Amino acid sequence: MADEKKFVEKITPREEDFAAWYTDVVKEAKLCDYSNVKGCLNYLPNGYAIWENIQQDLDRRFKETGVENVYLPVLIPESLLQKEKDHIEGFAPEVAWVTQGGGEDLEEKFCIRPTSETLFCDHWQKVVKSYRDLPLIWNQWCSVLRWEKTTRPFLRSREFLWQEGHTLHATAEEAEERTKMMFQVYQDFVQDDLAIPLVSGKKTESEKFAGAEDTYTIEALMHDGKALQSGTSHFFGNSFPDSFDIKYLDKENKLHSAYETSWGLSTRIIGAIIMVHGDDSGLVLPPRIAPTQTMIIPIAQHKEGVLEKANELYERLKKKNIRVKLDDTDKTPGYKFAEQEMLGIPTRVEIGPKDIENNQAVIVRRDTREKVVVSLDELEEKLEELLEIIQKDLFKKAKEFLDAHIFEATTLEEMQKIAKEEIGFIKADWCGDAVCEENIKAETDGFGSRCIAEEKPTGNCVYCGKPATHKVYWGKSY
Amino acid sequence: MADEKKFVEKITPREEDFAAWYTDVVKEAKLCDYSNVKGCLNYLPNGYAIWENIQQDLDRRFKETGVENVYLPVLIPESLLQKEKDHIEGFAPEVAWVTQGGGEDLEEKFCIRPTSETLFCDHWQKVVKSYRDLPLIWNQWCSVLRWEKTTRPFLRSREFLWQEGHTLHATAEEAEERTKMMFQVYQDFVQDDLAIPLVSGKKTESEKFAGAEDTYTIEALMHDGKALQSGTSHFFGNSFPDSFDIKYLDKENKLHSAYETSWGLSTRIIGAIIMVHGDDSGLVLPPRIAPTQTMIIPIAQHKEGVLEKANELYERLKKKNIRVKLDDTDKTPGYKFAEQEMLGIPTRVEIGPKDIENNQAVIVRRDTREKVVVSLDELEEKLEELLEIIQKDLFKKAKEFLDAHIFEATTLEEMQKIAKEEIGFIKADWCGDAVCEENIKAETDGFGSRCIAEEKPTGNCVYCGKPATHKVYWGKSY
Repeated sequence: MADEKKFVEKITPREEDFAAWYTDVVKEAKLCDYSNVKGCLNYLPNGYAIWENIQQDLDRRFKETGVENVYLPVLIPESLLQKEKDHIEGFAPEVAWVTQGGGEDLEEKFCIRPTSETLFCDHWQKVVKSYRDLPLIWNQWCSVLRWEKTTRPFLRSREFLWQEGHTLHATAEEAEERTKMMFQVYQDFVQDDLAIPLVSGKKTESEKFAGAEDTYTIEALMHDGKALQSGTSHFFGNSFPDSFDIKYLDKENKLHSAYETSWGLSTRIIGAIIMVHGDDSGLVLPPRIAPTQTMIIPIAQHKEGVLEKANELYERLKKKNIRVKLDDTDKTPGYKFAEQEMLGIPTRVEIGPKDIENNQAVIVRRDTREKVVVSLDELEEKLEELLEIIQKDLFKKAKEFLDAHIFEATTLEEMQKIAKEEIGFIKADWCGDAVCEENIKAETDGFGSRCIAEEKPTGNCVYCGKPATHKVYWGKSY
Repeated sequence: MADEKKFVEKITPREEDFAAWYTDVVKEAKLCDYSNVKGCLNYLPNGYAIWENIQQDLDRRFKETGVENVYLPVLIPESLLQKEKDHIEGFAPEVAWVTQGGGEDLEEKFCIRPTSETLFCDHWQKVVKSYRDLPLIWNQWCSVLRWEKTTRPFLRSREFLWQEGHTLHATAEEAEERTKMMFQVYQDFVQDDLAIPLVSGKKTESEKFAGAEDTYTIEALMHDGKALQSGTSHFFGNSFPDSFDIKYLDKENKLHSAYETSWGLSTRIIGAIIMVHGDDSGLVLPPRIAPTQTMIIPIAQHKEGVLEKANELYERLKKKNIRVKLDDTDKTPGYKFAEQEMLGIPTRVEIGPKDIENNQAVIVRRDTREKVVVSLDELEEKLEELLEIIQKDLFKKAKEFLDAHIFEATTLEEMQKIAKEEIGFIKADWCGDAVCEENIKAETDGFGSRCIAEEKPTGNCVYCGKPATHKVYWGKSY
């Protein structure tokens, strides 16, 4: 138990200093660390394995909707980045430029992709001729680079991993439908697989992606009450396609503009998993994306038959496709428990001489620490059941937290009071004017517009008092 | 049939001009194309889907040996790249440099990774303290950039996709064992999954990787008789770890050097698949890595019941986890056949009104074009059987070609005669002197050393006549 304490003592209590708690968990669970390349992360095995599971689940969902994967270059020529006016304005300040290659100064410089709309459009301009070539429903898994000044593990770093989907369509309706479809895929994935409840909707004009007509966002509420933008889906209309002169011939042989979407989700979402589910003992991973779902920890493993039985259980669980590990190192059980909890492994199976005698094992839930004694005859079934229950309970707990932290306000004063006394989202009506939006944020200590609610506004703009056009979720954000 | 001819006419016959045939197949099968970023490829859906299957199979094999995946930065500071002398000499001429970021000139420039030994060592220097921290068996899937002057699809391009494994060990023996283990994984994967037979062994001193003590290579023979280096596994000894000052404390608390390996396989291997198995009708893909294993093509699909039956078969095959597609477009059957052959889909299932009447379908093999009439009652079993047979037959055919193109020579004159009259590998003894190696290549029109054979030399060096130390496979290479 001395060992165990030492482990936990390395983590700042969550309620004492949330930011320090977050950094400690990332470090002690060995998810990632800063490389000597300023602002860039090393994604270490424990962190990258979570990303691999996210990729696998999300990629399956994409493919069910007809997405095909591709890979386009890491470099974008300066002239290409400049083709769409809003886009270059949005990204130019934060790109990195390659100016030398093969020992020579380059005639034209290249940026490392901050996002790839321009490359996709450049390719499509060459290959799209007729309505028969549409739609194109493409996606790539890659890294992008944005020269950020301040960085935090997973939340903001110069290089991060993501997927960027890019699609091209014959009609605006079809492109809008795809934008909303992928917005829905993100909601389903994050809620079902990551057990993270969401507030979702359109972004306001000033918060849209550079060059987009509409941006849909999913926003998750962290335990400290800040919102984390966790995935976005953009409808571009024909701004990019027209800038790149992408036209197609329809069935009547008439030349038409094409319509575009893009949508992305990044390693940022790992930050959300940590900050929604984690506790003072470390990570708490939802079973569906946990790299290891259960850790078998033998008790008194030097005693005859214990390790053999532990190995037997390991093989049995493996056969059932449960992601299982066995910790047969010479660390103490207490240390092993603490380590398994730190890593957020959803369950552990304790098996010792007495358990063997009684033909049982003890399953301990990571989320509630509840101990469940099960007969070895039904270990697989009970464990599978429990993993399902944990997945649901994690969502339920987070949903209750979210619901308890959405407030409503009808005046600026009410907003300011809530902003001072509470954490979370504030729902309030707004007139649609960017100046009011800016002022609300400034005068509520940072409650910016996160997304537009689906419900219609019921009153007047909390700032200017003019009739409201939208009901908006306001919040502080990462 | 007019349609079909048109399709095939776009491909230069393989025996007429192998290089043109290759380029045509890549283009017509839409595997990749050149982007507007000079020397960089767009990996398109048909090509990238092959890479995804390669990744999946190879990654599973890696993980069975204990490999963990990570992701390290795309950028390497100049000072880091320079730490290992041979390494910087090998790579400096072909890297691209980032000199500006976030609107400012950088104090230190960064190269885009050409390979990541330096980043792994830099991280390990920080985290490895004791024997308990070893071994580290890591791998990353990523892209690398080398500023090549001449480029060819998949074979040589500025940016390519690969995996790079990097491992760190307490002893030289363990590191050597890992080097050979991954060499074996590559051989098994390429032979079993890609149906490509190999010539494998150590590289000579002059052909080793920059900084390595030993490099093991797998070499595949293309249909034009040239060798393609298809994967390498390197033993570094402690050259890198010492340059980066990576030391660990052993059980007796003594400070020790650590030992390192790395190993990589790239999208180049897709070039090998094309050039080993392809024919005048296009790609021929081995069933195990074919993105689509069978294409259902309805005959007279406007007739009642045909599309329904085709859909029914599609659902049945899908249920059996056969990767199946149904071509129900309004193209002619002839065009559909030609397209399926072009894409290298290993089988097609033809189903028309007469077949339905007779409760049968016709399976056509892509490799031999053999038609097999099967009862619909046993479609799944027969198709699965056939896919296994095709996989084996492709290997057998390629192995016969390889065996028929390995020649032996005991004198330079014999080598020169073979080099003039034949294509393939020449096995010949060599004294170990780099000057002889260079001269042999120069005087045989390009037969360089590909790898050292396992068999002992039996005579004298074909060039200088001194006692031989090695028997070597010589060949022309891509």
